[in-house]
Amino acid sequence: MKRLLLLACVALFATPALADEGMWTFDNFPAAAVKVKYGVTIDQKWLDDVRGAAVRLSGGCSASVVTATGLVLTNHHCVRACAQNLSTTATDYVQEGFIAAKREDEKLCSGMQAEILDGITDMTARVNAASQGKNGADYVKARDAAIAAIEKEGCNGREDKFRCQVIALYQGGQYKLYTYRKYADVRLVFAPEVSMAFFGGDPDNFNFPRYDLDFSIVRLYEDGKPAVTPTHLKWTAAEPKAGQPVFVAGNPGSTERLLTVEQLEGERDLDHPDILLMLSEFRGRLIRFSAESTEHARIAESTLFGTENSYKAYKGRFEALLDPKLMASKRVADDDLKARLKANPKLAAEIGDPWGDLAKIEAERPQLQDQYAWLEARAGYRSTLFGYARSLVRAAAEREKPNGERLREYGESRLALLQKNTLDARPVYPELEQLALEFWLSKLRENLTADGAGTKLFLGKQSPEGLAAKLATSKLSDPAYRKALWDGGSAAIKASDDPLIQFVLATDGASRAIRKIYEDRISGPADRASEKIAKARFAVYGSAGYPDATFSLRLSYGAVEGWTEKGVAVPPVTTYGGLWERATGEFPFKLPPRWTAAKGKLNDKTVFDFATTNDIIGGNSGSPLIGAKGEVLGAVFDGNIESLGGDFWYDGSVNRAVVASTAAITEALRKIYHQDGLVAELTAK
Amino acid sequence: MKRLLLLACVALFATPALADEGMWTFDNFPAAAVKVKYGVTIDQKWLDDVRGAAVRLSGGCSASVVTATGLVLTNHHCVRACAQNLSTTATDYVQEGFIAAKREDEKLCSGMQAEILDGITDMTARVNAASQGKNGADYVKARDAAIAAIEKEGCNGREDKFRCQVIALYQGGQYKLYTYRKYADVRLVFAPEVSMAFFGGDPDNFNFPRYDLDFSIVRLYEDGKPAVTPTHLKWTAAEPKAGQPVFVAGNPGSTERLLTVEQLEGERDLDHPDILLMLSEFRGRLIRFSAESTEHARIAESTLFGTENSYKAYKGRFEALLDPKLMASKRVADDDLKARLKANPKLAAEIGDPWGDLAKIEAERPQLQDQYAWLEARAGYRSTLFGYARSLVRAAAEREKPNGERLREYGESRLALLQKNTLDARPVYPELEQLALEFWLSKLRENLTADGAGTKLFLGKQSPEGLAAKLATSKLSDPAYRKALWDGGSAAIKASDDPLIQFVLATDGASRAIRKIYEDRISGPADRASEKIAKARFAVYGSAGYPDATFSLRLSYGAVEGWTEKGVAVPPVTTYGGLWERATGEFPFKLPPRWTAAKGKLNDKTVFDFATTNDIIGGNSGSPLIGAKGEVLGAVFDGNIESLGGDFWYDGSVNRAVVASTAAITEALRKIYHQDGLVAELTAK
Repeated sequence: MKRLLLLACVALFATPALADEGMWTFDNFPAAAVKVKYGVTIDQKWLDDVRGAAVRLSGGCSASVVTATGLVLTNHHCVRACAQNLSTTATDYVQEGFIAAKREDEKLCSGMQAEILDGITDMTARVNAASQGKNGADYVKARDAAIAAIEKEGCNGREDKFRCQVIALYQGGQYKLYTYRKYADVRLVFAPEVSMAFFGGDPDNFNFPRYDLDFSIVRLYEDGKPAVTPTHLKWTAAEPKAGQPVFVAGNPGSTERLLTVEQLEGERDLDHPDILLMLSEFRGRLIRFSAESTEHARIAESTLFGTENSYKAYKGRFEALLDPKLMASKRVADDDLKARLKANPKLAAEIGDPWGDLAKIEAERPQLQDQYAWLEARAGYRSTLFGYARSLVRAAAEREKPNGERLREYGESRLALLQKNTLDARPVYPELEQLALEFWLSKLRENLTADGAGTKLFLGKQSPEGLAAKLATSKLSDPAYRKALWDGGSAAIKASDDPLIQFVLATDGASRAIRKIYEDRISGPADRASEKIAKARFAVYGSAGYPDATFSLRLSYGAVEGWTEKGVAVPPVTTYGGLWERATGEFPFKLPPRWTAAKGKLNDKTVFDFATTNDIIGGNSGSPLIGAKGEVLGAVFDGNIESLGGDFWYDGSVNRAVVASTAAITEALRKIYHQDGLVAELTAK
Repeated sequence: MKRLLLLACVALFATPALADEGMWTFDNFPAAAVKVKYGVTIDQKWLDDVRGAAVRLSGGCSASVVTATGLVLTNHHCVRACAQNLSTTATDYVQEGFIAAKREDEKLCSGMQAEILDGITDMTARVNAASQGKNGADYVKARDAAIAAIEKEGCNGREDKFRCQVIALYQGGQYKLYTYRKYADVRLVFAPEVSMAFFGGDPDNFNFPRYDLDFSIVRLYEDGKPAVTPTHLKWTAAEPKAGQPVFVAGNPGSTERLLTVEQLEGERDLDHPDILLMLSEFRGRLIRFSAESTEHARIAESTLFGTENSYKAYKGRFEALLDPKLMASKRVADDDLKARLKANPKLAAEIGDPWGDLAKIEAERPQLQDQYAWLEARAGYRSTLFGYARSLVRAAAEREKPNGERLREYGESRLALLQKNTLDARPVYPELEQLALEFWLSKLRENLTADGAGTKLFLGKQSPEGLAAKLATSKLSDPAYRKALWDGGSAAIKASDDPLIQFVLATDGASRAIRKIYEDRISGPADRASEKIAKARFAVYGSAGYPDATFSLRLSYGAVEGWTEKGVAVPPVTTYGGLWERATGEFPFKLPPRWTAAKGKLNDKTVFDFATTNDIIGGNSGSPLIGAKGEVLGAVFDGNIESLGGDFWYDGSVNRAVVASTAAITEALRKIYHQDGLVAELTAK
């Protein structure tokens, strides 16, 4: 048993991964292993074509270009906030769906930017040289300054169409410059009704068999016109077949497969309970808020969805962390690396004891975590207005500093997207703002205690409810006012009488101070130690493994395949026929009227959703599921419950990606939505 | 280090406990140790007098008789639900306080019964004989039948004034018959405003220094007249002094100090996260519900308080369970007992391997826990109407069976209090009922999944919201209807068209079935194994230790004492003067008008709240804090944050009980509330 666990883990670095494990970078894809297992040849052209069609969406999703006319396939839940932002009390595009009858009706998704990877350049040596010999906050500062400079140089003079980003891979073992072609004008073309896209709602989320039409179509625009996109995946209405080899090109958000046991124990004991309890209470408040009126339900829609989705994902991860097999396997992996390191005294002397360093950091972390979370990392919680205020206040201050001395998220290369996010028009809902601010301030007081210095500074003698009500009156809901403050810089910020701007001005020093302490004592040293472990791994195992996910482009391989649950085989596909059986008429198993009316008009045998063995994680939402010929067979929209442990390890026997088929999408667009024009464009007929 | 930990733990059974540890039964109080440490003589008369004045309140609190006229001192939070039940939309006794100007104004607390311990008889041999050689559900049934018989015989012919209850001590190592004098008519005499009784609210809960006047006065009635209670504690307005020896007589609810490491790990990984997440979401729903209107805030008052109080208590316990020192010390204790057992082959053969049994049970428990919780243990969650329906349906069925074959809570000796709880008039709030039922049903579906058999039976094709709305229309809010169903038994129940009665009738079989499975595979075998460990402990260490708390009368000793927190001394007392400094004018630091107006009229030097080293836990709320001469110096109302680990161990260096002084109460009754008559009665002047 131990031996098997050892293999499964050490495999990350020692040999090509077993099963279909791995979120591979495009410059290190194990094409030979794929050839052996699936008989498919993945050559450089295949990789280049797929890379050129794979899209990262700035909100945290993936997508793919599927026509030469800028059309992009992604998930419905990736445009859910967009659809809500475009809605009004009178028209709810989330409930009713969104259909642009003609191009002029396609509508801008506020804050959304699409990015297509153009090239990868190794910058490890340069970043390492800059941070050599430094520790704590000094290390963070030197590293971040080098990264900021690389990013600025990389896109110099072409910032309007490109974005440069340095991606840390293997926990800092490599730094690579990813250059993206960017599209800041993304417009919504088609979205089905949420009750169809998210049929089964939270109860069915992360479940399979599944019956969700979780797709949407957006279009990239350039200079006000549809972008010309000759590099694109080929749309197909062909159905996936059991056993068929398939690929996912997308941007998995983050995994923690290379963490040490001590770090995972911190995740289990400190982070996950804390996040889950926070989400759980916020969820309760939102559920009740939504029950108060149709309008409340409408404006809290995407916030509640996001909260429940995160809750369920973290819960699954927490359960994985409680599995003693997981920790045992990680311990075996840590011990193996340590033993091999010990056998190489020269390397051992160079590496030192980063595991010991991480254990010490983990022991100190609980003392700083609450302050860091509630004064800095979670400040404002989900208040849009607070987000605006902080961005404006900090951007004004940071823009006055040299690029290399700024807080990292205000570096030159990041400002354009930040500015777009801050200035794009979108609705702000004062009642929901107040709810979010109340929640944040009440948790701040609860966690820092009524007598804590942070509580006294942020709340003074005010109650969370009273202060939130005051802050929610902010004028920052007005995009023109935000633009005036962005353009006016520090002088305008200081002159502003806006209560939220004033509040952030008064408290930001304390937020920055705890952040500095945290970086100096926790995150900086932890990054440093992780870099050392990465170095040891490369030295001992070579570089045949894949790095943890970092919301950067990856390719995974696998096959259409079910699994066995408690001795019962779960088939790999569902069909439209099953949908009618599952509908009860009660939310969230209630179909939209258009669908209820259409029963009998669809081919009930069409493959609807399906499961594959591809190794994915949150952030992969919207990724194209690609056949061996580069054709797009569906949009990945979920993983099964068993996949939630995928944050920490990949278990090929049960871990499954869940996909909405282009076959079902095509059928629905034709027969339910009567979008023959859109289908013609997608199928290039 | 290890040696010290060993001593601290093994001390539970080997020698009198170190520090002021222990919740001692009245028949095994370590008077000699108290004499040595504090120089106080606790003789049988002292014990009898205190026992005769110590009160258990059926809602889960403690109290004490303090006059010959039936007056009883307890906490405000022990009558908070009573005050709410007596309120209407027009008059809110929680916010405004309750003052009975004359005896006729004293009002019945619905469902409240006061119980005074009259005698203790050992029944271990009889219970053991009945269950010998049995296992699983057979064991549970035999044991419970024996207990039911003992309870019935014990109070035979005098059930109107007495209640007999068999208490399992030392995890089933002993069974003792506790005979109580009972008072089913308890009336509210005085309660301060909640903003004074619970000044600082949830943020200050479990904190010290503290400024809460958390007391109330109720009166025992008999045959419609104030009870004559010659045995009572003597009221004093004398202030407690630092270092003064003090005693707490009360009913600590439950502790888990004798659990094995495997059981504690189950508490840490399974129970605590689960309960905390449930409470957290329910809290969020209640907070938002309460914010909707003054009336919603009023009707959700005591439910929200109870939820937040539980949440904070469980959170502190969870943090204690995450402390590696705790588990290490428990492991040392387990290992010591196992080693000593091994050294005695005869005993070892007799005991077997109960630790191994418990480890196996803990490994199986997660598979059954959700079903057991949501279909049985937490069914209806906090819905009063569901509670009525289940009690009525089950009482009707169980009363038709012989006493020994009933579900234990429907045994003859339990029926009187159950009947009182079911039939006493009290307001039911349909909106709050719906909220509770929705929450329960949504959690049931979430935890058992949409496809689970339990979900299908309980919800069918209905949504949690739709079904809850239907059930909340139940007529069981009418006490007359409840009485008709109670009196009418099974025939009336079956003939009822009440939706909630029908719902419970349709689902109760499934609830009972999972309970039986759970008792057969989890709780029965666990009790059996725990009994064996208790037997081993008695054999190896003797019986000088104290049993875990079981909401039965205990006596703890200690002294008025502060502690040191992060190097800073926390003084043991607060005074009225500090109250004015802490008041901000904003909830929950806003004083009631009567108090704001009274600033300057009180003696600001009066000791308000104080801390003692007594070993207490939830259930001790309202317990008298007693001086060496048997005088009552205050009402215990809380523990400090550090005391929350007290569920698992007692750390004398930081674990503190928190008490509202009779000195402050007397001062407030005189100068703020002008209750000279009540003061005269209390002080017998």
